[in-house]
Amino acid sequence: MSQQTWQKLVEWPLFAAAVLFLAAYSWEVIADLQGPDAVLAESVIWGTWGLFALDYVVNLALAEDRRRWFVRHLLDLAVVVLPMLRPLRILRVGTIMVVLGRTAGAMLRGKVILYAAGASAMLVYVAALAVLDAERGQDGSIQTFGEGLWWAFVTITTVGYGDFFPVTPTGQLVAVGVMVGGIALIGVVTGTLASWIVERVSVNNEAEQVATKAHIDQLTAELRELREELRQRA
Amino acid sequence: MSQQTWQKLVEWPLFAAAVLFLAAYSWEVIADLQGPDAVLAESVIWGTWGLFALDYVVNLALAEDRRRWFVRHLLDLAVVVLPMLRPLRILRVGTIMVVLGRTAGAMLRGKVILYAAGASAMLVYVAALAVLDAERGQDGSIQTFGEGLWWAFVTITTVGYGDFFPVTPTGQLVAVGVMVGGIALIGVVTGTLASWIVERVSVNNEAEQVATKAHIDQLTAELRELREELRQRA
Amino acid sequence: MSQQTWQKLVEWPLFAAAVLFLAAYSWEVIADLQGPDAVLAESVIWGTWGLFALDYVVNLALAEDRRRWFVRHLLDLAVVVLPMLRPLRILRVGTIMVVLGRTAGAMLRGKVILYAAGASAMLVYVAALAVLDAERGQDGSIQTFGEGLWWAFVTITTVGYGDFFPVTPTGQLVAVGVMVGGIALIGVVTGTLASWIVERVSVNNEAEQVATKAHIDQLTAELRELREELRQRA
Amino acid sequence: MSQQTWQKLVEWPLFAAAVLFLAAYSWEVIADLQGPDAVLAESVIWGTWGLFALDYVVNLALAEDRRRWFVRHLLDLAVVVLPMLRPLRILRVGTIMVVLGRTAGAMLRGKVILYAAGASAMLVYVAALAVLDAERGQDGSIQTFGEGLWWAFVTITTVGYGDFFPVTPTGQLVAVGVMVGGIALIGVVTGTLASWIVERVSVNNEAEQVATKAHIDQLTAELRELREELRQRA
Repeated sequence: MSQQTWQKLVEWPLFAAAVLFLAAYSWEVIADLQGPDAVLAESVIWGTWGLFALDYVVNLALAEDRRRWFVRHLLDLAVVVLPMLRPLRILRVGTIMVVLGRTAGAMLRGKVILYAAGASAMLVYVAALAVLDAERGQDGSIQTFGEGLWWAFVTITTVGYGDFFPVTPTGQLVAVGVMVGGIALIGVVTGTLASWIVERVSVNNEAEQVATKAHIDQLTAELRELREELRQRA
Repeated sequence: MSQQTWQKLVEWPLFAAAVLFLAAYSWEVIADLQGPDAVLAESVIWGTWGLFALDYVVNLALAEDRRRWFVRHLLDLAVVVLPMLRPLRILRVGTIMVVLGRTAGAMLRGKVILYAAGASAMLVYVAALAVLDAERGQDGSIQTFGEGLWWAFVTITTVGYGDFFPVTPTGQLVAVGVMVGGIALIGVVTGTLASWIVERVSVNNEAEQVATKAHIDQLTAELRELREELRQRA
Repeated sequence: MSQQTWQKLVEWPLFAAAVLFLAAYSWEVIADLQGPDAVLAESVIWGTWGLFALDYVVNLALAEDRRRWFVRHLLDLAVVVLPMLRPLRILRVGTIMVVLGRTAGAMLRGKVILYAAGASAMLVYVAALAVLDAERGQDGSIQTFGEGLWWAFVTITTVGYGDFFPVTPTGQLVAVGVMVGGIALIGVVTGTLASWIVERVSVNNEAEQVATKAHIDQLTAELRELREELRQRA
Repeated sequence: MSQQTWQKLVEWPLFAAAVLFLAAYSWEVIADLQGPDAVLAESVIWGTWGLFALDYVVNLALAEDRRRWFVRHLLDLAVVVLPMLRPLRILRVGTIMVVLGRTAGAMLRGKVILYAAGASAMLVYVAALAVLDAERGQDGSIQTFGEGLWWAFVTITTVGYGDFFPVTPTGQLVAVGVMVGGIALIGVVTGTLASWIVERVSVNNEAEQVATKAHIDQLTAELRELREELRQRA
């Protein structure tokens, strides 16, 4: 089996696993599970992790040039190995974004905005989960999921009131991720609007309009007519 | 009557209703109305709501393909149904912006900036109203309209001192709206400036200038002269 | 005397008056003047104000169409009338920026950045002055010029720690001005960088390069050669 | 020896000196060195400073037009003279960025992003060092390297919670540098994304496509065929 066949085969199962993981992780963190429920949630989390690990191993085995694939997919390795550290588990939801992005096909302006909005919403959600997981029971101010969500919104928009902020190293690591996401979000929104405005602001003086393929086509047609005329005369 | 005729007919009445609603809502919230005054303000608010609801129903009835119109105007439905929830009433002022935007016609650069400034000012004003409505009498720090305005400015520019911030879920929802508006505002300002700078920075080397319609026209004229010359010689 | 002659004549005196005003105002606020020194500083401030008022009146008198000039220069009227209100005095330094901007001539990219940097530095400085003038002796946290400067930097970059913030309406009005300046600053920096990057990222595939005037010129030359050839043969 | 030969010769030694300086400075600040270790670290710091001073003097001596070189390299003078003031020592790491930037060659979009990311990471690191050096033992909240790093991240992204902030003039100077870096970072990210989006958003209507060199080439080919035809007929 070629690597491409495998990747097409597991695309949707991996997507489903990522969603399942997100559900189990949300349930565990928000409900602050203890006892058998916690065991169940953990099982789902580790089960979905197993799928991702399997996918990585199979990909490595099927790769034409294994060394090259390994070097070029260090991020994939990180996504598989790092979630063993509890706070980095959320990296796994990146799979959801990758699959959604692939489905989006050619990224036109509207789709860029839609994708950015979706990615931001997911980032806010998983950051709220991860920060709550890290901060609950600590000295910090974030103790409920609602506070986590509010904190994530205040952070991704770079407002930063300071009414809630993480105090544990893990929580601060999550925060740095959200802040970087916020800068990227501002960049995407601004870039898209800029491209839209640049396009809309048409030069009013027609003679100064940029030459288009239509103009060239018209010129070519004229040249062909001349040629035809000469041919008939000959 | 066609749907278009209806829409043209009610455009300005709806605009007036939105303004009237904004005035009544401002009065109710800022003056913290009680007794008969509150009843009067509430009557105006519900009366204008009635107009919006009527407009929605008539539009649905007149639509050529009702199912399609319904699906494509879910936002309109939200604007009609959600304001029954007190904090979401302010959504109705969106009508003011829509009408103003339509009047603005083709959005050239200057108009984009003007519209963004107007929309930001209105967003600050209605957010100050809505957050005060939600927070007054609560444990939070925002207790006067002046504090609400100051908070809205600090939030929309993403400064976020943290001297004032909402503590109720409703107030925080309003805040998220203002923050998103702030990101959009930065995007519009930046995008417009970028488009202006891209245009001003003209390439100095003339040969590297982009070919314009004027260049093509000149070439076409030359080709026609050649044709004329050949014709006369024949 | 024509209006243009007058404007050329007073450009540099007005610039000098604005600088003088800034010096006197800085001295008065930073040193918290009392007694005869305060009288001296106030005299300079009112004297320079007199020059601006005179300039406005003369311009209005010399204008070809006074009504039109009045309507188009409402901002100039504001700059003259508003500084009678103490906190709005700083508006007068706008003259410095206008004169410097005029000197800058055609605004190429480098100059845009330089001008933005200069305007931001001046905005930080006058905002620190104005906020100190408004807040000193009040309940707020800003009580020295150093604190004012620090606060202005934290605000214009939209960081907003919240260690210092204005509490008086006047101070908050100054703050809104600084925040708006900060958004504009981000816009200018981003726009200039975007225009630079758009220009540098050249399309590598030569066939996909945009047609330039050079390409058209080459084509025109070829057409002329053909014409010449036909003429010689005839 | 020409100035260019010298500069090529010392490029990498200076880079190494800057890295060595950064290591010694990091060690001194983070470990809060006292006694002989501090002496050692200080020796390295002053030794590397000596190299930079030497480079400046040699450059001045070898310059063709010394006065012109002096005026055009005031920044270089500042980098040599200012680090005598302890908090400005970190300016020396600018050398690292300059050398890395030179190695990067032509700055294509990917490289711009990579360079911005590298510069931001270095800015966060040296700012955390410098702010800790300035604030430790003072009344302020930043007392460990971890707190310094966290503060630098919160500042460069312009979030500014206000849980940590510098209180000494030196620390605030460092903060202003980080904030300015943050604005530049937002500008680079946004500008790069804007340029990418402008390029990707292709006009779908083919006739409205901008005329490319390929279109012109096709037209030229057609013109040449006509010429050949006429020649053969003659």
